Amino acid sequence: MDSKKPKSDVYWVKFEISKEDRRKLKGHASVVIWLTGLPASGKTSIARELEKRLHEMGGHTYVLDGDNMRHGLNRDLGFSKEDRQENIRRIAEVAKLFVDAGIITICAFVSPFKEDRETARSLVEANEFIEVFVNCPVTVCIERDPKSLYKKALSGQIKSFTGVNDPYEVPDCPDIVVETNKLTLSETVDTIVKHLNDKGLIEDLKCSACSDNTG
Amino acid sequence: MDSKKPKSDVYWVKFEISKEDRRKLKGHASVVIWLTGLPASGKTSIARELEKRLHEMGGHTYVLDGDNMRHGLNRDLGFSKEDRQENIRRIAEVAKLFVDAGIITICAFVSPFKEDRETARSLVEANEFIEVFVNCPVTVCIERDPKSLYKKALSGQIKSFTGVNDPYEVPDCPDIVVETNKLTLSETVDTIVKHLNDKGLIEDLKCSACSDNTG
Repeated sequence: MDSKKPKSDVYWVKFEISKEDRRKLKGHASVVIWLTGLPASGKTSIARELEKRLHEMGGHTYVLDGDNMRHGLNRDLGFSKEDRQENIRRIAEVAKLFVDAGIITICAFVSPFKEDRETARSLVEANEFIEVFVNCPVTVCIERDPKSLYKKALSGQIKSFTGVNDPYEVPDCPDIVVETNKLTLSETVDTIVKHLNDKGLIEDLKCSACSDNTG
Repeated sequence: MDSKKPKSDVYWVKFEISKEDRRKLKGHASVVIWLTGLPASGKTSIARELEKRLHEMGGHTYVLDGDNMRHGLNRDLGFSKEDRQENIRRIAEVAKLFVDAGIITICAFVSPFKEDRETARSLVEANEFIEVFVNCPVTVCIERDPKSLYKKALSGQIKSFTGVNDPYEVPDCPDIVVETNKLTLSETVDTIVKHLNDKGLIEDLKCSACSDNTG
């Protein structure tokens, strides 16, 4: 039995079909596209539209979304700093499995702490993690407030709400910044798809947003 | 924003690209193939060979393996009954995500308790879970003992070791039983692949093990 990295009595098992084999099957790279930003900054809307676009291009995608994960894998976690960290740790581990499985993995999480985002980045290879800072002024997020969560936080009904009474640490060097109060959703998705294309990650997919690059 | 099932302030977000869309892209169904059995009964070897076979047929597969998960997602868990249950719960939630992502998901876990396997089954649809009982007499497993874990358990160095001082609850109605002390590895994999084919789950893949079904 092939094994490496013994951890007490738990061994790492190597399987024959590799990430590269799966990528070959699919014709595109697998990466984590990590959308971080304030609540209501637009992460989920971007995830939805980006997935749709990449799927239409023939890409195999999956979205790991903050709220959805809290209904399943992370249903036992709350919103303390420790629980938020564990929330992101587990998601990052799952994202790593998805990248290993050959999938373009879109993660939409507030993920307010730099340290946690760096943990997520550290789990995959350097060229497999694309941090997208979904930048939107908190005043605009408060106006949008689709789930009335800012309203509840501002009135004291919710404690530890990022952007109101809990900090959001702005990324130092994100791979992409999208300003969702200035761009349309379609333009935002264009920006991300072009970045993926420029990095050679989706070369075999049909990319309409990138046609001006080929002329 | 589409949402259902509110759980306090956490909403379920529906994305546009569905499991069916991904399946269409791939030409096969996505299921959980859950291998359960004693340590050293052959689960990991079957997972490896089954994945290789399905990949060669053009299937998109991924293996979630007991030891590997304990190096990542479940690194914080030990081997108490509670921790074993949490181990299986998290894995089952991840398997559900993989099925949703359109992947043939092979799970190789001792998973000794019926209740936990039923939890795993309950998370996906009825036709998406295939329980494979990897049946091998404990005396044969003790002879194999590739990681010398039975030796340690029998000498008292490891406590709570399934098959020695911790129970294994035999499945009542597994979808498939493979007796790894009677079949070769190749025959074992044939049995599982034929089952998948008979259920119409891999119709679009090239199945050499199923050629006698088509005559």
